Amino acid sequence: MNNDSNPMMPISDLPTANESERPAVSQAVIKRLPRYFRYLRELLRQGKMRISSGELSALMNVTASQIRQDLNCFGGFGQQGYGYNVNYLYAKICEILGVGAGLTAIVIGVGDLGRALVRSSMFEKRGVDIIGLFDIAPNIVNTQFGSLTVAHMDTLADFCKQNQVDFAVLTLPKNAVVEVSEQLMDLGVRGLWNFTGAELPFRDDSMIVENVHLGDSLMTLNYKLCADREVHMPEQD
Amino acid sequence: MNNDSNPMMPISDLPTANESERPAVSQAVIKRLPRYFRYLRELLRQGKMRISSGELSALMNVTASQIRQDLNCFGGFGQQGYGYNVNYLYAKICEILGVGAGLTAIVIGVGDLGRALVRSSMFEKRGVDIIGLFDIAPNIVNTQFGSLTVAHMDTLADFCKQNQVDFAVLTLPKNAVVEVSEQLMDLGVRGLWNFTGAELPFRDDSMIVENVHLGDSLMTLNYKLCADREVHMPEQD
Repeated sequence: MNNDSNPMMPISDLPTANESERPAVSQAVIKRLPRYFRYLRELLRQGKMRISSGELSALMNVTASQIRQDLNCFGGFGQQGYGYNVNYLYAKICEILGVGAGLTAIVIGVGDLGRALVRSSMFEKRGVDIIGLFDIAPNIVNTQFGSLTVAHMDTLADFCKQNQVDFAVLTLPKNAVVEVSEQLMDLGVRGLWNFTGAELPFRDDSMIVENVHLGDSLMTLNYKLCADREVHMPEQD
Repeated sequence: MNNDSNPMMPISDLPTANESERPAVSQAVIKRLPRYFRYLRELLRQGKMRISSGELSALMNVTASQIRQDLNCFGGFGQQGYGYNVNYLYAKICEILGVGAGLTAIVIGVGDLGRALVRSSMFEKRGVDIIGLFDIAPNIVNTQFGSLTVAHMDTLADFCKQNQVDFAVLTLPKNAVVEVSEQLMDLGVRGLWNFTGAELPFRDDSMIVENVHLGDSLMTLNYKLCADREVHMPEQD
């Protein structure tokens, strides 16, 4: 296959390493990998097949030494001075992060935010297959999104018994979240991507939860703007 | 005013400390404050006016010693054994984070995600006033959201000259982001809440940028699910 002519190969065609050789990667590196994933993906999109740590450093605003340290654990860089093989690194990072692992998800709550997520390319880009949409609102149930029809929550249990569901995206109203998430756990769903702001009742490893608190990000921006304002405002008498 | 009868006071009525006494708070504490903000807000909603560090610790799943350390810098806890005054702490955190500072924002790109954000209570809860919505799509321009009408991007410059705009929420397509963000800088907008995934060209303090990468959160969940799957899968021959 000529990679240059096809920089955005489907995920299934990416070269993958032997599973038994899956490298051990520290938690700190894991946390930084999604960012590498984004940049490498963009480089592939641009058809760039090799990049030096210096170039990547300038692009990502991270020291070249940090980059070398982070990417060292994957091995197989190619020669000094020749740079990284973008496609190889991308495939390695995909493998480690579980892109191409065939994860499946359902979305619970197809209001504004649920709809925005379903319609984005976010899941597809990361190899996640959205296989079901659920809501209770009469004006939402039975509406169509691409090849999927929004089903009623009453059918959730049957759906989860008939399909392998790895995780649920929670974009339903906050007051229903605890009940629904406990139901999902009982149905064998292993993970929750929680946008509701509700605190979920799982403190052990009975459920893998990733919370998104957009409001916290907004607060950080607020704080920086107020601090900036104090610096730039003329002194008052 | 009887706080007990009115646990959710409007932001403007919250007791505020003297500006000149604004406490110095470390960056590490600042990063944790939005989470305290959420929990304290919920306690106020429940009408709870006092809480011990032990109770708050159990609720937030943080050590009581961490809580005491974080909240020490605000002073004025009340007596040992009597607990924290929830309202006072909430007001202090609001003050530090800039809730009630009267920040104004515009939303650029009123597609699915922009709409979801505008319709949420996120801004109002944090004292941010959304004063303008902008788009270019003919089917979106002139549509109404609450009291706001989506304006065409052609009118952005005039709007920013006539109104104080502290920050812009960027939910427009990625390919237009750099141009629009540079225009916003020229118009004196100081901050960007960037949902586009695009890398913005500001590396100095010419613009305060808060990036939201939902995909990174999804990747983290993917990773944890795959790691979990390896642990739980039966060994293959």
